[in-house]
Amino acid sequence: MCQYPKHVGIKEVGPRDGLQNEDVFIDTNDKVKWINMLSESGVKEIEYSSFVHPKWIPPLADAREVGRRIKRNPDVTYSALVPNLKGLEHALETGIDVASVFMSASDTHNQKNINKSIDETYPVLKKVIHEAKDAKKAVTGYVSTVFDCPYEGRISPEQVIDVCDQLFDYGVDSISLGDTIGTAVPSQVEALLASILSRYDQEKIIMHFHDTRGMAIANMMTSIQHGITRFDSSVGGLGGCPYAKGAAGNVATNDVLYLLHGLGIETGIKEEKIQQAALYIQDKLGKSLPSKALAYQSTNYKKTV
Amino acid sequence: MCQYPKHVGIKEVGPRDGLQNEDVFIDTNDKVKWINMLSESGVKEIEYSSFVHPKWIPPLADAREVGRRIKRNPDVTYSALVPNLKGLEHALETGIDVASVFMSASDTHNQKNINKSIDETYPVLKKVIHEAKDAKKAVTGYVSTVFDCPYEGRISPEQVIDVCDQLFDYGVDSISLGDTIGTAVPSQVEALLASILSRYDQEKIIMHFHDTRGMAIANMMTSIQHGITRFDSSVGGLGGCPYAKGAAGNVATNDVLYLLHGLGIETGIKEEKIQQAALYIQDKLGKSLPSKALAYQSTNYKKTV
Repeated sequence: MCQYPKHVGIKEVGPRDGLQNEDVFIDTNDKVKWINMLSESGVKEIEYSSFVHPKWIPPLADAREVGRRIKRNPDVTYSALVPNLKGLEHALETGIDVASVFMSASDTHNQKNINKSIDETYPVLKKVIHEAKDAKKAVTGYVSTVFDCPYEGRISPEQVIDVCDQLFDYGVDSISLGDTIGTAVPSQVEALLASILSRYDQEKIIMHFHDTRGMAIANMMTSIQHGITRFDSSVGGLGGCPYAKGAAGNVATNDVLYLLHGLGIETGIKEEKIQQAALYIQDKLGKSLPSKALAYQSTNYKKTV
Repeated sequence: MCQYPKHVGIKEVGPRDGLQNEDVFIDTNDKVKWINMLSESGVKEIEYSSFVHPKWIPPLADAREVGRRIKRNPDVTYSALVPNLKGLEHALETGIDVASVFMSASDTHNQKNINKSIDETYPVLKKVIHEAKDAKKAVTGYVSTVFDCPYEGRISPEQVIDVCDQLFDYGVDSISLGDTIGTAVPSQVEALLASILSRYDQEKIIMHFHDTRGMAIANMMTSIQHGITRFDSSVGGLGGCPYAKGAAGNVATNDVLYLLHGLGIETGIKEEKIQQAALYIQDKLGKSLPSKALAYQSTNYKKTV
């Protein structure tokens, strides 16, 4: 029988990675109200927005206003995505506990994403990481397309490790490994984690799955079996996939909690609060979110309210 | 690293367990055309309908006509659900290779389902099984609610084993263990399979998952890790849940194939054929099916046709 950890930590990334991939701009008042709901769910970390230039991510163009207006729960760590020094400056002015930097393990994906090669991106990240550390902030590095790239195909664990080595060398506190296009199956997760966990402390590694093809929960299980205890997820499975309209987004926090609590693993998060937050944002987006646990909960929810 | 089997067998149950839980009656011509599509997908077994009285399952009221009209592929085993001797008689007249009988591991669920206790059902099943074997047909026993019952809650492995012992004693060739309401998490699968596989040959055990809360693929992975090599699934994730309108149904054959082929496990089934069959029935039902792999495939599919 498998031994499960006592506790698993969830970072709610719906307000950033989720909304970033939705076409609708959610009114700032609604966003703030929604993030405040999430802050009261028991979740310990929330990525509340992205300080990328508004031109690139219109749904998150109000990052500064959101950051200023959300009610900060002292039990919650607030992070935001920062692409460069300008973004970090805005994020620090607005208020963050953690700066999230990002890089793709695939050179072509990085190029298409931010118009720079991996080697051209390193000096930018180095400065941002050092500046954030000087400001006494923690830093998380997102490494995307760690399994497959929509342009290059299969990515090797060695490519991922090259990027992780560099980011840890610059001083990031933890790294989130992203199945950005949701292609991975558990055997790929096993292969990557065998390399990663022989090299880095498991406490510094976060797994970030997308459920584009319905594999995310199985990939989480495999990660847990290998000792991973930190995951990113989005309320309701917000987000979609930029490479396939209509496909599912981030693994849904609702499904993740159903799994973890069912396994007897504590998260500190109240499922009904996440359900309410999912129904709230689903209503604002005007579409059904892809979480299956939510679809199930919703029917029961409707019966009881 | 986990060792995976070389081959896994899939029984397509969409025409029976899938349609049985849909509100729409699919025209018999369309059903026949659709089952013929499935017969050409490479799948080795199809459950084409149910010979339960039409009053109880109106969407499958045309079982006899469907059975008479489908084109039998000699490489495919055709099964149908039979509740009693009358049903078996109709199924044998119409043509089956396998008779599927069913029983719940929960007495209350069995009572609600067929208006008989487990003990009252045994003599009926015994006769049906013996009659089917006399007619030289194979028999599969479905045992439902093997993890949780909507009325009784948690079901113990001992309750499941009691029913399995009896059915094997009557002569069934294999048993399909159903997570009928889609509540199980992998730790429950581990616990049940530890008991089941210490008692019965793994080749005789089929796992039948519903994806009501998004756990089915993770539960399949756990089953594979424990040595299970036979699964039931439905094209597109047809079926829904009678206890929660709008919730997902059987685990989707599309998602199952994405997982198995990704793990390097052979099924003999062509993914594009299953995708076409899923899009066909989705169109006839007039609603999106819950398979995430299908949602992803559909967007690509639309681009290329």
